[in-house]
Amino acid sequence: MNPRLDAQIAFLSEADKLKSVLRASRLLDGSRRENSAEHSWHIMLYALVLADQSDSQVNIDRVLKMLLLHDLVEIDAGDLPIHGGGDPAKQAASEQAAADRLFALLPDDQCQEFRALWDEFEAAHSPDALFAKAIDRVQTPVANLANGGGTWVDYNVSMAQLDQRVGVPIKRGAPTLWKWLRPRIKQFFDTPDTPAS
Amino acid sequence: MNPRLDAQIAFLSEADKLKSVLRASRLLDGSRRENSAEHSWHIMLYALVLADQSDSQVNIDRVLKMLLLHDLVEIDAGDLPIHGGGDPAKQAASEQAAADRLFALLPDDQCQEFRALWDEFEAAHSPDALFAKAIDRVQTPVANLANGGGTWVDYNVSMAQLDQRVGVPIKRGAPTLWKWLRPRIKQFFDTPDTPAS
Repeated sequence: MNPRLDAQIAFLSEADKLKSVLRASRLLDGSRRENSAEHSWHIMLYALVLADQSDSQVNIDRVLKMLLLHDLVEIDAGDLPIHGGGDPAKQAASEQAAADRLFALLPDDQCQEFRALWDEFEAAHSPDALFAKAIDRVQTPVANLANGGGTWVDYNVSMAQLDQRVGVPIKRGAPTLWKWLRPRIKQFFDTPDTPAS
Repeated sequence: MNPRLDAQIAFLSEADKLKSVLRASRLLDGSRRENSAEHSWHIMLYALVLADQSDSQVNIDRVLKMLLLHDLVEIDAGDLPIHGGGDPAKQAASEQAAADRLFALLPDDQCQEFRALWDEFEAAHSPDALFAKAIDRVQTPVANLANGGGTWVDYNVSMAQLDQRVGVPIKRGAPTLWKWLRPRIKQFFDTPDTPAS
C-alpha cells in the first residue's frame, strides 16, 4: 500500500490530457498545430539555452519547474490564443478553477508547492516569473518566421499589436531577446514574401 | 549582432523536429501514438512528482535537465521501440552521431555542458542518471495499463520479457516504483480483459 504514490500516479495520468490540448501555433515546418505538452517541453529547452541572454539574475531550476507546470490548467481551460480576441478575465477564472482541481489530485505538500510556483508564474512579478513569461512568448514568433507567418496571418495581426501583445512581456523579462526578434518580425511584416534569414 | 544568440536559436529551431518523432507508445486514451517531445515533457513531470519515491538521494534539477535533453538525438536516430527487436548497438552509434551533430549547433560552452549531461544519462551510472533512466521506463506501462495493453499487445510481450526490459532498469533507479507497478502489470497479464484498477 502506498496511497501517496497512488495519488501521484493519478495526477500524472490526468496530466496526459495536455497532449490533446491544441494551440493556435504550428510546428516550424507548418505541418500541423502544436499541442500544449510538446510546447511546454520546447519552451523549457528555450529557457535552458537562453538563460544566459537574460538581463537579470534568474534561477533556471525554478524557471524550468514553472514552465513544466504552467500550462497544465489548459487541460480544463483550453488554450486562449493571444491574438484570438477571447476574454482574458474569463480565461483567468477558468484557469484558477483548473488549478484548484488539478493540483488537488496530488498529496497536500506537493499540491501547495506546485500551486505556489504556478501562482508565482501567473503573478508575473518575480525575476524568475518574468523571464519564464518572456520565454513563453518567444517561441511562437520564431515558428511564425519559419512557416510563413503562422498565427500572424491567421489572425491578421499588425506590427503595433505584436509590439503590445508580444513585445511588452518579452521586453519585461528578456529585453535582449526582443532586440534580436523585433527587426526580424518587422522585416517579415514589411516584406512578407521574402523568406526570413 | 549577437552570433551566440543566432546559434542558440538555430539549435532551438532544429529541436522543433522532435515533435515529429513518433514513439511506439500511445496516449493514455489510446487515441494516437505519442511523440518524443510531449513524452519528454511528461517524464519530466513524472520525475518532479516522483522524486520523493526514490530510494537514493537525487538532484532533481539535474534529473530534469537530463530528461529535457535525453531524446533530442531521436531527431536523427528515431525512436527504437524497446520491444521491437531492433539492434541496440546500431541505434547507439546513430545516437552518438546525432549528439555530435545536434549539440555542435550550440555555442561551445553549452555544447560541452549539454553533451556531458547526455553522456551521463546514457552511461547510467550516477544516481541522477539511474533515476532518470528508471523514470523514462515508468510512463509507458502506466499508459499501457490504461489503454488496454498498448505496446505489450502490439509486440506480444511476455511478463518475463517485461521483468527484464522494464523491471531491471526501474529497479536499479527507483525500486519503490517497480514494487508499485509490477503487481498491476502482472494482474493485467493474468487477466487481460479486466480493466486495471
